Amino acid sequence: MKVRTHSVWEVKKNMDWERLARQMEFLVEIDRLKRVVRQSLLIDGSRQENSAEHSWRLAVLAMTLAERSKAPVDLPRVLKMILVHDLVEIDAGDTYCYDEEANKDRARRENKAADRIFSLLPTGQADEFRSLWEEFEARNSADALFAASLDRLQPLVNNFRSGGVMWRKHGVRKEQVFSKNGHMAKGAPVLWDYAEKIIQDAISKGWIC
Amino acid sequence: MKVRTHSVWEVKKNMDWERLARQMEFLVEIDRLKRVVRQSLLIDGSRQENSAEHSWRLAVLAMTLAERSKAPVDLPRVLKMILVHDLVEIDAGDTYCYDEEANKDRARRENKAADRIFSLLPTGQADEFRSLWEEFEARNSADALFAASLDRLQPLVNNFRSGGVMWRKHGVRKEQVFSKNGHMAKGAPVLWDYAEKIIQDAISKGWIC
Repeated sequence: MKVRTHSVWEVKKNMDWERLARQMEFLVEIDRLKRVVRQSLLIDGSRQENSAEHSWRLAVLAMTLAERSKAPVDLPRVLKMILVHDLVEIDAGDTYCYDEEANKDRARRENKAADRIFSLLPTGQADEFRSLWEEFEARNSADALFAASLDRLQPLVNNFRSGGVMWRKHGVRKEQVFSKNGHMAKGAPVLWDYAEKIIQDAISKGWIC
Repeated sequence: MKVRTHSVWEVKKNMDWERLARQMEFLVEIDRLKRVVRQSLLIDGSRQENSAEHSWRLAVLAMTLAERSKAPVDLPRVLKMILVHDLVEIDAGDTYCYDEEANKDRARRENKAADRIFSLLPTGQADEFRSLWEEFEARNSADALFAASLDRLQPLVNNFRSGGVMWRKHGVRKEQVFSKNGHMAKGAPVLWDYAEKIIQDAISKGWIC
Protein backbone atom coordinates (compact mmCIF):
# COMPACT_ATOMS: atom_id res chain seq x y z
CA MET A 1 0.00 0.00 0.00
CA LYS A 2 1.32 3.40 -0.97
CA VAL A 3 1.07 6.06 1.75
CA ARG A 4 0.93 9.63 0.52
CA THR A 5 3.36 11.81 2.44
CA HIS A 6 3.05 15.55 2.71
CA SER A 7 6.22 17.55 2.50
CA VAL A 8 6.84 20.22 5.13
CA TRP A 9 6.48 22.73 2.30
CA GLU A 10 3.01 21.41 1.40
CA VAL A 11 1.80 21.53 5.01
CA LYS A 12 3.08 25.08 5.40
CA LYS A 13 1.43 26.13 2.17
CA ASN A 14 -1.91 24.69 3.25
CA MET A 15 -1.69 26.37 6.65
CA ASP A 16 -0.93 29.63 4.93
CA TRP A 17 -3.85 29.23 2.54
CA GLU A 18 -6.13 28.50 5.50
CA ARG A 19 -4.89 31.67 7.22
CA LEU A 20 -5.62 33.69 4.07
CA ALA A 21 -9.10 32.14 3.84
CA ARG A 22 -9.83 33.31 7.42
CA GLN A 23 -8.53 36.79 6.68
CA MET A 24 -10.71 36.99 3.58
CA GLU A 25 -13.83 35.86 5.48
CA PHE A 26 -13.20 38.66 8.00
CA LEU A 27 -12.82 41.16 5.16
CA VAL A 28 -16.04 39.96 3.56
CA GLU A 29 -17.85 40.20 6.92
CA ILE A 30 -16.79 43.79 7.62
CA ASP A 31 -18.41 44.96 4.39
CA ARG A 32 -21.61 44.97 6.47
CA LEU A 33 -20.45 48.05 8.40
CA LYS A 34 -21.49 50.02 5.31
CA ARG A 35 -25.11 49.21 6.21
CA VAL A 36 -24.94 50.57 9.77
CA VAL A 37 -26.72 53.94 9.74
CA ARG A 38 -25.81 56.70 12.22
CA GLN A 39 -27.67 59.68 13.69
CA SER A 40 -25.61 62.19 11.69
CA LEU A 41 -26.35 63.58 8.27
CA LEU A 42 -23.75 64.07 5.56
CA ILE A 43 -22.79 67.74 5.55
CA ASP A 44 -24.90 68.34 2.41
CA GLY A 45 -27.89 67.02 4.39
CA SER A 46 -28.74 64.44 1.69
CA ARG A 47 -28.84 61.36 3.92
CA GLN A 48 -27.62 59.82 7.20
CA GLU A 49 -24.04 58.64 7.19
CA ASN A 50 -22.96 55.04 7.76
CA SER A 51 -20.28 53.76 10.12
CA ALA A 52 -17.84 52.67 7.38
CA GLU A 53 -17.61 56.09 5.72
CA HIS A 54 -17.63 57.71 9.19
CA SER A 55 -14.56 55.61 10.12
CA TRP A 56 -12.77 56.67 6.94
CA ARG A 57 -13.29 60.38 7.55
CA LEU A 58 -12.29 59.99 11.18
CA ALA A 59 -8.99 58.44 10.05
CA VAL A 60 -8.32 61.39 7.72
CA LEU A 61 -9.16 63.72 10.62
CA ALA A 62 -6.47 61.94 12.65
CA MET A 63 -3.90 62.32 9.85
CA THR A 64 -4.70 66.01 9.58
CA LEU A 65 -5.10 66.94 13.23
CA ALA A 66 -2.55 64.71 15.01
CA GLU A 67 -0.60 67.86 15.95
CA ARG A 68 -3.62 68.95 18.03
CA SER A 69 -3.42 66.10 20.53
CA LYS A 70 -2.61 67.17 24.09
CA ALA A 71 -0.03 64.39 24.52
CA PRO A 72 2.12 63.10 21.63
CA VAL A 73 0.40 60.23 19.86
CA ASP A 74 1.56 57.23 17.86
CA LEU A 75 -0.35 58.13 14.68
CA PRO A 76 -0.16 54.65 13.09
CA ARG A 77 -1.74 53.14 16.22
CA VAL A 78 -4.38 55.88 16.25
CA LEU A 79 -5.22 55.14 12.61
CA LYS A 80 -5.54 51.40 13.24
CA MET A 81 -7.66 52.04 16.33
CA ILE A 82 -10.00 54.29 14.37
CA LEU A 83 -10.27 51.84 11.48
CA VAL A 84 -11.57 49.07 13.78
CA HIS A 85 -13.34 51.16 16.45
CA ASP A 86 -16.85 50.68 15.06
CA LEU A 87 -16.68 47.09 13.79
CA VAL A 88 -18.78 45.86 16.73
CA GLU A 89 -21.66 47.90 15.32
CA ILE A 90 -22.12 45.24 12.64
CA ASP A 91 -23.95 43.22 15.31
CA ALA A 92 -24.67 45.81 18.00
CA GLY A 93 -25.80 48.69 15.74
CA ASP A 94 -24.82 52.30 16.27
CA THR A 95 -25.88 53.57 19.69
CA TYR A 96 -26.77 57.27 19.54
CA CYS A 97 -24.68 58.98 22.19
CA TYR A 98 -27.66 61.01 23.48
CA ASP A 99 -29.97 57.96 23.76
CA GLU A 100 -29.60 57.23 27.48
CA GLU A 101 -31.81 54.13 27.45
CA ALA A 102 -29.91 52.45 24.60
CA ASN A 103 -26.58 53.27 26.23
CA LYS A 104 -27.43 51.20 29.33
CA ASP A 105 -26.68 47.85 27.68
CA ARG A 106 -24.33 49.10 24.98
CA ALA A 107 -21.22 47.58 26.57
CA ARG A 108 -22.84 44.15 26.88
CA ARG A 109 -24.08 44.18 23.28
CA GLU A 110 -20.75 45.39 21.92
CA ASN A 111 -18.70 42.86 23.87
CA LYS A 112 -20.77 40.04 22.46
CA ALA A 113 -20.27 41.46 18.96
CA ALA A 114 -16.51 41.74 19.54
CA ASP A 115 -16.39 38.06 20.57
CA ARG A 116 -17.89 37.03 17.27
CA ILE A 117 -16.37 39.49 14.82
CA PHE A 118 -12.71 39.60 15.91
CA SER A 119 -12.57 35.83 16.30
CA LEU A 120 -13.09 35.46 12.55
CA LEU A 121 -9.42 36.49 12.22
CA PRO A 122 -6.37 34.29 12.81
CA THR A 123 -5.49 34.32 16.56
CA GLY A 124 -2.69 36.91 16.67
CA GLN A 125 -4.58 39.40 14.56
CA ALA A 126 -7.82 38.78 16.47
CA ASP A 127 -6.02 39.77 19.70
CA GLU A 128 -4.36 42.82 18.15
CA PHE A 129 -7.56 44.22 16.61
CA ARG A 130 -9.63 43.50 19.72
CA SER A 131 -7.19 45.22 22.07
CA LEU A 132 -7.18 48.30 19.87
CA TRP A 133 -10.96 48.40 20.14
CA GLU A 134 -10.84 47.85 23.92
CA GLU A 135 -8.28 50.62 24.32
CA PHE A 136 -10.47 53.00 22.31
CA GLU A 137 -13.45 52.21 24.53
CA ALA A 138 -11.45 52.53 27.77
CA ARG A 139 -9.84 55.86 26.74
CA ASN A 140 -6.91 55.03 29.01
CA SER A 141 -4.02 56.08 26.74
CA ALA A 142 -3.01 59.22 24.86
CA ASP A 143 -3.80 57.46 21.56
CA ALA A 144 -7.29 56.48 22.69
CA LEU A 145 -8.07 59.87 24.25
CA PHE A 146 -7.13 61.59 21.01
CA ALA A 147 -9.06 59.15 18.81
CA ALA A 148 -12.12 59.50 21.04
CA SER A 149 -11.86 63.31 20.85
CA LEU A 150 -12.01 63.16 17.07
CA ASP A 151 -14.95 60.78 17.27
CA ARG A 152 -16.80 63.51 19.21
CA LEU A 153 -15.60 66.41 17.04
CA GLN A 154 -16.80 64.91 13.77
CA PRO A 155 -20.57 64.67 14.51
CA LEU A 156 -20.51 68.16 16.10
CA VAL A 157 -19.06 69.62 12.91
CA ASN A 158 -21.37 67.61 10.64
CA ASN A 159 -24.45 68.48 12.68
CA PHE A 160 -23.56 72.14 12.80
CA ARG A 161 -22.74 72.38 9.09
CA SER A 162 -25.92 70.57 8.10
CA GLY A 163 -28.17 72.97 10.05
CA GLY A 164 -28.49 71.10 13.34
CA VAL A 165 -31.30 68.91 11.96
CA MET A 166 -30.47 65.84 14.08
CA TRP A 167 -30.08 67.83 17.34
CA ARG A 168 -33.48 69.41 16.74
CA LYS A 169 -35.08 66.09 15.72
CA HIS A 170 -33.94 64.43 18.97
CA GLY A 171 -34.44 67.52 21.18
CA VAL A 172 -30.83 67.34 22.38
CA ARG A 173 -30.15 69.49 25.47
CA LYS A 174 -27.00 71.50 26.12
CA GLU A 175 -26.24 69.62 29.38
CA GLN A 176 -26.15 66.40 27.32
CA VAL A 177 -23.83 67.93 24.74
CA PHE A 178 -21.37 69.18 27.36
CA SER A 179 -21.51 65.94 29.32
CA LYS A 180 -20.95 63.68 26.30
CA ASN A 181 -18.29 65.78 24.58
CA GLY A 182 -16.42 67.35 27.49
CA HIS A 183 -13.78 64.59 27.52
CA MET A 184 -12.37 66.19 24.37
CA ALA A 185 -10.66 68.66 26.73
CA LYS A 186 -8.46 65.80 27.96
CA GLY A 187 -7.48 64.49 24.53
CA ALA A 188 -7.26 67.68 22.48
CA PRO A 189 -7.93 70.96 24.35
CA VAL A 190 -7.59 73.09 21.20
CA LEU A 191 -10.23 71.02 19.44
CA TRP A 192 -12.46 71.28 22.50
CA ASP A 193 -12.11 75.11 22.31
CA TYR A 194 -13.17 74.88 18.68
CA ALA A 195 -16.05 72.52 19.55
CA GLU A 196 -17.26 74.79 22.36
CA LYS A 197 -17.59 77.68 19.92
CA ILE A 198 -19.69 75.47 17.66
CA ILE A 199 -21.87 74.35 20.57
CA GLN A 200 -22.43 77.93 21.79
CA ASP A 201 -23.30 79.00 18.27
CA ALA A 202 -25.77 76.09 17.93
CA ILE A 203 -27.36 77.03 21.28
CA SER A 204 -27.75 80.67 20.19
CA LYS A 205 -29.44 79.51 16.96
CA GLY A 206 -31.84 77.37 19.01
CA TRP A 207 -30.59 74.09 17.48
CA ILE A 208 -29.62 72.74 20.90
CA CYS A 209 -32.10 73.46 23.69
CA MET B 1 -3.78 108.29 20.26
CA LYS B 2 -3.50 104.83 21.71
CA VAL B 3 -2.04 102.21 19.35
CA ARG B 4 -3.08 98.65 20.01
CA THR B 5 -0.05 96.35 20.01
CA HIS B 6 -0.25 92.63 19.39
CA SER B 7 1.97 90.45 21.52
CA VAL B 8 3.98 87.70 19.81
CA TRP B 9 1.74 85.28 21.65
CA GLU B 10 -1.40 86.83 20.13
CA VAL B 11 0.03 86.73 16.60
CA LYS B 12 1.04 83.08 17.03
CA LYS B 13 -2.37 82.21 18.40
CA ASN B 14 -4.09 83.86 15.43
CA MET B 15 -1.81 82.06 12.96
CA ASP B 16 -2.57 78.78 14.67
CA TRP B 17 -6.30 79.44 14.61
CA GLU B 18 -6.05 80.25 10.90
CA ARG B 19 -4.21 76.97 10.32
CA LEU B 20 -6.94 75.08 12.18
CA ALA B 21 -9.61 76.88 10.15
CA ARG B 22 -7.94 75.66 6.91
CA GLN B 23 -7.67 72.11 8.22
CA MET B 24 -11.35 72.15 9.17
CA GLU B 25 -12.39 73.45 5.73
CA PHE B 26 -10.48 70.56 4.14
CA LEU B 27 -12.21 68.10 6.49
CA VAL B 28 -15.60 69.58 5.65
CA GLU B 29 -14.82 69.37 1.91
CA ILE B 30 -13.81 65.70 1.97
CA ASP B 31 -17.22 64.74 3.36
CA ARG B 32 -18.30 64.91 -0.31
CA LEU B 33 -16.39 61.70 -1.11
CA LYS B 34 -19.33 59.87 0.51
CA ARG B 35 -21.43 60.95 -2.51
CA VAL B 36 -19.10 59.47 -5.14
CA VAL B 37 -20.69 56.25 -6.36
CA ARG B 38 -18.59 53.36 -7.73
CA GLN B 39 -19.26 50.49 -10.12
CA SER B 40 -19.17 47.89 -7.33
CA LEU B 41 -22.06 46.65 -5.24
CA LEU B 42 -21.88 46.03 -1.52
CA ILE B 43 -21.42 42.30 -0.98
CA ASP B 44 -25.09 41.95 0.01
CA GLY B 45 -25.99 43.43 -3.39
CA SER B 46 -28.19 46.14 -1.83
CA ARG B 47 -26.61 49.16 -3.51
CA GLN B 48 -23.45 50.51 -5.16
CA GLU B 49 -20.65 51.42 -2.80
CA ASN B 50 -19.21 54.91 -2.44
CA SER B 51 -15.56 55.95 -2.46
CA ALA B 52 -15.41 56.91 1.23
CA GLU B 53 -16.55 53.55 2.56
CA HIS B 54 -14.43 51.83 -0.13
CA SER B 55 -11.37 53.69 1.21
CA TRP B 56 -12.14 52.58 4.76
CA ARG B 57 -12.39 48.91 3.87
CA LEU B 58 -9.26 49.13 1.76
CA ALA B 59 -7.38 50.47 4.80
CA VAL B 60 -8.60 47.54 6.93
CA LEU B 61 -7.50 45.19 4.12
CA ALA B 62 -4.04 46.73 4.36
CA MET B 63 -3.91 46.24 8.15
CA THR B 64 -4.97 42.62 7.75
CA LEU B 65 -2.97 41.63 4.68
CA ALA B 66 0.27 43.63 5.03
CA GLU B 67 2.15 40.33 5.50
CA ARG B 68 1.13 39.41 1.93
CA SER B 69 3.09 42.16 0.24
CA LYS B 70 5.93 40.95 -1.97
CA ALA B 71 8.36 43.53 -0.57
CA PRO B 72 8.22 44.72 3.06
CA VAL B 73 5.97 47.77 3.37
CA ASP B 74 5.77 50.72 5.72
CA LEU B 75 2.19 50.05 6.88
CA PRO B 76 1.56 53.54 8.32
CA ARG B 77 2.49 55.07 4.95
CA VAL B 78 0.31 52.54 3.13
CA LEU B 79 -2.62 53.43 5.39
CA LYS B 80 -2.19 57.16 4.80
CA MET B 81 -1.84 56.59 1.06
CA ILE B 82 -5.04 54.57 0.96
CA LEU B 83 -6.94 57.10 3.05
CA VAL B 84 -6.24 59.90 0.54
CA HIS B 85 -6.01 57.87 -2.71
CA ASP B 86 -9.53 58.64 -3.91
CA LEU B 87 -9.97 62.24 -2.74
CA VAL B 88 -9.56 63.53 -6.30
CA GLU B 89 -12.80 61.75 -7.16
CA ILE B 90 -14.71 64.51 -5.33
CA ASP B 91 -14.21 66.58 -8.51
CA ALA B 92 -13.20 63.98 -11.09
CA GLY B 93 -15.73 61.26 -10.19
CA ASP B 94 -14.90 57.57 -10.06
CA THR B 95 -13.58 56.30 -13.37
CA TYR B 96 -14.62 52.67 -13.93
CA CYS B 97 -11.43 50.75 -14.64
CA TYR B 98 -13.00 48.91 -17.62
CA ASP B 99 -14.34 52.10 -19.25
CA GLU B 100 -11.60 52.72 -21.81
CA GLU B 101 -13.07 55.96 -23.14
CA ALA B 102 -13.36 57.57 -19.69
CA ASN B 103 -9.83 56.48 -18.80
CA LYS B 104 -8.33 58.53 -21.65
CA ASP B 105 -8.58 61.83 -19.82
CA ARG B 106 -8.65 60.49 -16.27
CA ALA B 107 -5.15 61.74 -15.41
CA ARG B 108 -5.93 65.27 -16.62
CA ARG B 109 -9.21 65.43 -14.67
CA GLU B 110 -7.65 64.02 -11.52
CA ASN B 111 -4.65 66.34 -11.59
CA LYS B 112 -6.93 69.33 -11.80
CA ALA B 113 -8.92 67.97 -8.86
CA ALA B 114 -5.73 67.42 -6.86
CA ASP B 115 -4.70 71.05 -7.48
CA ARG B 116 -7.91 72.28 -5.90
CA ILE B 117 -8.51 69.77 -3.11
CA PHE B 118 -5.06 69.36 -1.57
CA SER B 119 -4.42 73.11 -1.67
CA LEU B 120 -7.22 73.61 0.84
CA LEU B 121 -4.73 72.33 3.44
CA PRO B 122 -1.87 74.31 5.04
CA THR B 123 1.20 74.10 2.76
CA GLY B 124 3.23 71.31 4.42
CA GLN B 125 0.26 69.02 4.72
CA ALA B 126 -0.92 69.82 1.20
CA ASP B 127 2.46 68.63 -0.12
CA GLU B 128 2.50 65.50 2.05
CA PHE B 129 -1.01 64.38 1.11
CA ARG B 130 -0.52 65.16 -2.57
CA SER B 131 2.73 63.22 -2.83
CA LEU B 132 1.10 60.20 -1.22
CA TRP B 133 -1.61 60.35 -3.89
CA GLU B 134 0.98 60.81 -6.68
CA GLU B 135 2.98 57.85 -5.39
CA PHE B 136 -0.16 55.69 -5.35
CA GLU B 137 -0.92 56.63 -8.94
CA ALA B 138 2.66 56.09 -10.13
CA ARG B 139 3.00 52.68 -8.40
CA ASN B 140 6.74 53.25 -8.19
CA SER B 141 7.38 52.04 -4.63
CA ALA B 142 6.70 48.89 -2.62
CA ASP B 143 4.09 50.77 -0.57
CA ALA B 144 2.24 51.98 -3.66
CA LEU B 145 2.41 48.61 -5.44
CA PHE B 146 0.92 46.91 -2.42
CA ALA B 147 -1.81 49.55 -1.93
CA ALA B 148 -2.70 49.35 -5.63
CA SER B 149 -2.90 45.53 -5.42
CA LEU B 150 -5.45 45.79 -2.62
CA ASP B 151 -7.37 48.38 -4.64
CA ARG B 152 -7.73 45.74 -7.35
CA LEU B 153 -8.43 42.82 -5.02
CA GLN B 154 -11.35 44.48 -3.28
CA PRO B 155 -13.70 44.97 -6.28
CA LEU B 156 -12.87 41.45 -7.53
CA VAL B 157 -13.97 39.97 -4.20
CA ASN B 158 -17.05 42.20 -3.93
CA ASN B 159 -18.11 41.50 -7.49
CA PHE B 160 -17.64 37.78 -7.11
CA ARG B 161 -19.41 37.59 -3.75
CA SER B 162 -22.35 39.65 -5.02
CA GLY B 163 -22.97 37.38 -8.03
CA GLY B 164 -20.93 39.17 -10.70
CA VAL B 165 -23.79 41.60 -11.40
CA MET B 166 -21.58 44.54 -12.39
CA TRP B 167 -19.30 42.46 -14.67
CA ARG B 168 -22.37 41.15 -16.48
CA LYS B 169 -24.01 44.60 -16.65
CA HIS B 170 -20.91 46.08 -18.32
CA GLY B 171 -20.10 42.96 -20.42
CA VAL B 172 -16.58 42.84 -19.00
CA ARG B 173 -14.20 40.56 -20.95
CA LYS B 174 -11.53 38.33 -19.46
CA GLU B 175 -8.71 40.05 -21.38
CA GLN B 176 -9.74 43.32 -19.70
CA VAL B 177 -9.77 41.68 -16.26
CA PHE B 178 -6.30 40.20 -16.69
CA SER B 179 -4.91 43.39 -18.19
CA LYS B 180 -6.26 45.69 -15.47
CA ASN B 181 -5.52 43.44 -12.48
CA GLY B 182 -2.34 41.66 -13.52
CA HIS B 183 -0.12 44.23 -11.79
CA MET B 184 -1.19 42.61 -8.50
CA ALA B 185 1.45 39.96 -9.25
CA LYS B 186 4.11 42.63 -8.70
CA GLY B 187 2.73 43.95 -5.41
CA ALA B 188 1.34 40.81 -3.79
CA PRO B 189 1.81 37.54 -5.72
CA VAL B 190 -0.14 35.45 -3.16
CA LEU B 191 -3.12 37.77 -3.47
CA TRP B 192 -2.86 37.58 -7.26
CA ASP B 193 -2.99 33.75 -7.00
CA TYR B 194 -6.13 34.16 -4.92
CA ALA B 195 -7.57 36.68 -7.38
CA GLU B 196 -6.84 34.44 -10.35
CA LYS B 197 -8.89 31.64 -8.79
CA ILE B 198 -11.79 34.07 -8.38
CA ILE B 199 -11.48 35.25 -11.98
CA GLN B 200 -11.35 31.69 -13.36
CA ASP B 201 -14.38 30.80 -11.28
CA ALA B 202 -16.24 33.88 -12.54
CA ILE B 203 -15.36 32.96 -16.14
CA SER B 204 -16.62 29.40 -15.65
CA LYS B 205 -19.91 30.76 -14.25
CA GLY B 206 -20.24 33.00 -17.33
CA TRP B 207 -20.04 36.23 -15.28
CA ILE B 208 -17.00 37.42 -17.22
CA CYS B 209 -17.14 36.82 -20.96
